[in-house]
Amino acid sequence: MPAQAVITLTSDFGLADAYVAAMKGVILSLNRNAVIVDVSHAVRPQRIEQGAFVLEAARPYFPADAIHVAVVDPGVGTERRGIALQTPFGVFVGPDNGVLSPTLTQELREGVGEGGGRVPLPDGTAGVELSNPRYQHLPISRTFHGRDVFAPAAAHLSLGVALAELGQAVADAFVLPPFRARRRPDGSLAGRVVHVDGFGNLITDVRAEDLPSSPVTVEIRGRRIAGLRQGYAGGQGLMAVTGSSGYLEIAVPGGSAAAETGADLGEPVTVRA
Amino acid sequence: MPAQAVITLTSDFGLADAYVAAMKGVILSLNRNAVIVDVSHAVRPQRIEQGAFVLEAARPYFPADAIHVAVVDPGVGTERRGIALQTPFGVFVGPDNGVLSPTLTQELREGVGEGGGRVPLPDGTAGVELSNPRYQHLPISRTFHGRDVFAPAAAHLSLGVALAELGQAVADAFVLPPFRARRRPDGSLAGRVVHVDGFGNLITDVRAEDLPSSPVTVEIRGRRIAGLRQGYAGGQGLMAVTGSSGYLEIAVPGGSAAAETGADLGEPVTVRA
Amino acid sequence: MPAQAVITLTSDFGLADAYVAAMKGVILSLNRNAVIVDVSHAVRPQRIEQGAFVLEAARPYFPADAIHVAVVDPGVGTERRGIALQTPFGVFVGPDNGVLSPTLTQELREGVGEGGGRVPLPDGTAGVELSNPRYQHLPISRTFHGRDVFAPAAAHLSLGVALAELGQAVADAFVLPPFRARRRPDGSLAGRVVHVDGFGNLITDVRAEDLPSSPVTVEIRGRRIAGLRQGYAGGQGLMAVTGSSGYLEIAVPGGSAAAETGADLGEPVTVRA
Repeated sequence: MPAQAVITLTSDFGLADAYVAAMKGVILSLNRNAVIVDVSHAVRPQRIEQGAFVLEAARPYFPADAIHVAVVDPGVGTERRGIALQTPFGVFVGPDNGVLSPTLTQELREGVGEGGGRVPLPDGTAGVELSNPRYQHLPISRTFHGRDVFAPAAAHLSLGVALAELGQAVADAFVLPPFRARRRPDGSLAGRVVHVDGFGNLITDVRAEDLPSSPVTVEIRGRRIAGLRQGYAGGQGLMAVTGSSGYLEIAVPGGSAAAETGADLGEPVTVRA
Repeated sequence: MPAQAVITLTSDFGLADAYVAAMKGVILSLNRNAVIVDVSHAVRPQRIEQGAFVLEAARPYFPADAIHVAVVDPGVGTERRGIALQTPFGVFVGPDNGVLSPTLTQELREGVGEGGGRVPLPDGTAGVELSNPRYQHLPISRTFHGRDVFAPAAAHLSLGVALAELGQAVADAFVLPPFRARRRPDGSLAGRVVHVDGFGNLITDVRAEDLPSSPVTVEIRGRRIAGLRQGYAGGQGLMAVTGSSGYLEIAVPGGSAAAETGADLGEPVTVRA
Repeated sequence: MPAQAVITLTSDFGLADAYVAAMKGVILSLNRNAVIVDVSHAVRPQRIEQGAFVLEAARPYFPADAIHVAVVDPGVGTERRGIALQTPFGVFVGPDNGVLSPTLTQELREGVGEGGGRVPLPDGTAGVELSNPRYQHLPISRTFHGRDVFAPAAAHLSLGVALAELGQAVADAFVLPPFRARRRPDGSLAGRVVHVDGFGNLITDVRAEDLPSSPVTVEIRGRRIAGLRQGYAGGQGLMAVTGSSGYLEIAVPGGSAAAETGADLGEPVTVRA
């Protein structure tokens, strides 16, 4: 890996404090040539699934040798593992709590239940527990492994340190199920809101490729939206559109669908043909 | 153009989502040496004029070979053009809807009416429509040309791809009128608020050089402010000051003029000698 | 100093406007190789002490040759000095109003009273007033020395310009007292909230090393918290924890201690054995 590695950061730390800067300082103290990119630090506090969604939305646009650090970590200071996973589409560093789910193919993740679960690492993916103190910022605080464990791991990896140096190999990882609405026996799709963006667009787990080719009706919080639009422009009021990441979105052009409907993360959405 | 180009980003995307990061990933995937700088992603949703103002406030402080990407794009997915303009003071990339107005001199823009209009490109400025799929991120989504059209155009330009390669030449561009208060027959200036900054300062389109040398009175929402101050310090309550970009600002030291007056974008302001 | 210097920025400018971008443009126009890192731009407007706290929280994680620019500057445009201080743990640039306090050791700062005061620069630290127009962005505005004085000073220093070139030597600097709760005659600690982070955690000036080894009670706004926890995880309701910067924090796991208690910056906190 070249020294001028791309390292991305995703967290629920916000930008008001020194937390993100401390992570960047740790990285740059080890590798001044690292190119650090913020994905988002506005994940809702401790919403692991939303963190995974935001990382999954950004990841495909980065080089395959990028290192992605994701820290949404309600279990910091407990026995949950910190891990790094080397995959064909990037290296992922963070707590082993599902936030790194985008590391693993959708197929693998389909087996796990609603709350997530452990899956064996597939061929071509290697993982370690970040246990080697040589590659940590010591002493490790109880509350900020982003700075003390994950940032230094990413920096050392960006300098070419072999994954296996960072700790003991792991054979599995905890993942969340893929973002994909369930198909009901009657053919309708039962999905939910997995992200609310800065415009107030409600982004669901209903995938474009699962939508019927016939006209659809989208239901959310008692509101019915007839038909799918091709884009935001020219629309008025509540509308459904296939968004830029391939998921069904509910939007209000010039307004906020979140405010208009009162829906938030987790809100059920139904799509009927 | 050297590979280590400076690319700035201005948008209404906010920083909570993966949108800005996806643009950065696209750029870095093409040119890892690009130096990417956020101007602001907090332009109000779809407020083209505010986006132009923010870009115009930042642009003079960047190198003349910087590439400025501005995406405030309510017409995304419609037939509005995406363009790139090469000028003596930078390259500008974005929708052809007026957000790129800072590309063109104030003089040129003075001819257009209140809602903006098309002006021919002046000598020394070249423009293209971003139509060459070779320099796009395919398939192009209907809702996110920042990632699929504008970011790749900027990255290719930063690598030295000639402007003419990106698409067909354009002879004109859509611009907004310059930020400049109108002089009434009685000599007073009729301006308005064009930006509200993070302190709640109300930034108007009244230019310092248009202010009379005699003492002035500034009126906004029924409030009268006597005289201009030289700076914020030492003042109390509502005050008028010539701001750091050369426009008249209305401020409350230690407070918010927006909250104090209830004024927002577009609010009329009158300056009398 | 190498050209690829790390320059950090701390301010109360917010990220909605072009202010921070203008500073970055000024820096990159002078030194395109500078690695610029935002510490935070969400310091409360004109809260010098909070700016100093945020900078102090980030600074230890940056390389010792980093240049830290901090602009919380209610006195901009008055006779307050702009200074640069070269110290064993970094170069600090900003107004001489206390925001640069982290430049100087805690020991030195202990002598000053509650509102801060001037202390002589210690051995190993050199300071100058930023008065040489050759290293300024002219004309200097009355309201934005971040762009016109501090950013260019940092950029020139990053290029290897000697500190002494930037202006006349200064022998002292204005500093705030160290963040450290006062011990009362009865042995209890009288501290206060010095920062509220993005989670709503209340960060106090009570240092971990000042806490008694026996169980403690923490009092804030009439609430009593029994005992100190080792981390956030597994806790419920209002809790006290030693945070990642070595100060006592009051937190609500999954919630906001600021909202729960109504406390804000400056709120008194008492710790009793």
